[in-house]
Amino acid sequence: MTRFETPQVAVIGAGEIGRGWVALCVAAGWPVTLYEPDAETLNPAMDAVTERVQALVDLKRADATVAEEALNRVVVGRSLLQAVGEAGWIIECLPEDLPAKVKALHLTEQVARRSAVLSSSSNGFTSTDLGARLERPDRLLVLHPLLPVELIPLVEVAPGPRTDPEVVEDIRFWLSMLGRAPIILKKEIAGSVAGRFTAALWRECIQLVLDGVLDVEDVDRAVALGPALGWAAAGPHLEHQLAAGEWGAEMHLSQALGSYAAVWKSLAGWSQLEPEAHHKFIRAVARAYSNHDAELRSARNHRLVRILEALNE
Amino acid sequence: MTRFETPQVAVIGAGEIGRGWVALCVAAGWPVTLYEPDAETLNPAMDAVTERVQALVDLKRADATVAEEALNRVVVGRSLLQAVGEAGWIIECLPEDLPAKVKALHLTEQVARRSAVLSSSSNGFTSTDLGARLERPDRLLVLHPLLPVELIPLVEVAPGPRTDPEVVEDIRFWLSMLGRAPIILKKEIAGSVAGRFTAALWRECIQLVLDGVLDVEDVDRAVALGPALGWAAAGPHLEHQLAAGEWGAEMHLSQALGSYAAVWKSLAGWSQLEPEAHHKFIRAVARAYSNHDAELRSARNHRLVRILEALNE
Repeated sequence: MTRFETPQVAVIGAGEIGRGWVALCVAAGWPVTLYEPDAETLNPAMDAVTERVQALVDLKRADATVAEEALNRVVVGRSLLQAVGEAGWIIECLPEDLPAKVKALHLTEQVARRSAVLSSSSNGFTSTDLGARLERPDRLLVLHPLLPVELIPLVEVAPGPRTDPEVVEDIRFWLSMLGRAPIILKKEIAGSVAGRFTAALWRECIQLVLDGVLDVEDVDRAVALGPALGWAAAGPHLEHQLAAGEWGAEMHLSQALGSYAAVWKSLAGWSQLEPEAHHKFIRAVARAYSNHDAELRSARNHRLVRILEALNE
Repeated sequence: MTRFETPQVAVIGAGEIGRGWVALCVAAGWPVTLYEPDAETLNPAMDAVTERVQALVDLKRADATVAEEALNRVVVGRSLLQAVGEAGWIIECLPEDLPAKVKALHLTEQVARRSAVLSSSSNGFTSTDLGARLERPDRLLVLHPLLPVELIPLVEVAPGPRTDPEVVEDIRFWLSMLGRAPIILKKEIAGSVAGRFTAALWRECIQLVLDGVLDVEDVDRAVALGPALGWAAAGPHLEHQLAAGEWGAEMHLSQALGSYAAVWKSLAGWSQLEPEAHHKFIRAVARAYSNHDAELRSARNHRLVRILEALNE
């Protein structure tokens, strides 16, 4: 198989992330097999995938005929061998349990083609961690998608020092074919880039709620109708560049770094909430959003798709 | 004048923020006067405002006839008295220099109507700081818009303990008439909410660039095509709510707070860069975006407006 053919994809793990990968590949008309060792997770999985594919069709993110055909061809493997034996691209997305993932990747390698690309959808572990027991760690890299996998374009690609550069290029190419925006990390880091961004912003949000400055819904509005718009339209550095004006970017940035010092000094620095604050915060979120999940999700997905369409115009 | 009439607006300060407020009010057809003590800032100001209003018309954010009429009626005051004497809403947006702002607000109060609402577009000072010399601090509050003022809906409204609740309601109403999304802070804080969000995210971005994990453009893409989309479509807490799935939100949040502990612990904590890192970072940004500002700005503004239209659909 060459890179330019549609790969046969095997998804291992049918949780939130696995369902998203299957839906995304099916929406593109790709052949997919799915393997999930836990019956409780597996049983509702194909119904959930069908729903997601239907949502992508409704949102005009997939062609109905192509998606339906691919959906009918999805094979749920009764064994790991059956699921991954023919695959060119294997996407492991089992829960974040390092020994379990290391073991699953090791078993997968034994039944997969030698030419298969092995990727692990992990948020917390590196390729080096995950490939510890592999004979061919050069075939492995970490992929970190965001939720919902089938809608958010960013996929972080985190190769390890032993990953074959050809494997990185295969993944970059396939992700691009799936309409994703792959970002290749130049070094392995603890956690994911997006996770670090989210953690940094969220800690400040939590602190504002705990301090009684804004309630949860106003924090969400402040993010959504404020800085998130500039971040989505440009990203933080391009925003700075465009705010520079007549001074020029260097002067502006230098000034900004200086004037942010006081704010950085005053940001929350905790890494764990005290039990009382923990419960206070959870109650505050519950007051804001309880019991409307289905409507809220559908509204969010519509806004997300409209934003993506706006950015693609 | 009652709240429900269009107010006569006086903008004091014709820098980046002042020009944005004038353009926004003109686009809505409101009568505006402008005062700027510094000739170097004033001279290019009305050309810049005219350009911004034209851009709003081109972006279909303003009616051409309404905006042109209002633009022709803008009065550039030769004195503070001439600029603010008839105003119902005074927007002070001089540079962030506390003694200068305190003095300007004090002088403004002496020539303004007793019924005028005084707002200060400040990012760093509170109503209590800024109203130190006012006879009627109950007429003052802080407004914090983002750039570009005429495009980003969020405006933080930060009253002080002495601010009259009626003044808060006037401002909320007028901002809503201008299509803004006012968020009222329940307490005075150091800096602005959006500034704190930006500082938290930006510090992590800078660290990734300095650590050589991603270059500046990939950091911007990672933010823009990743978490910023969910933040713009929902906000961070609604995102968590929707990611909860079958477990329920409380369980999910509790789990998330626990699993973020390690990430929070590993986030950058500095409040100032060493000189070498400072220059390394500024060079990295310069490599990414130098010399295409006009195109980049116009592309950003188009994406921003399309996102806003998408959210309003």
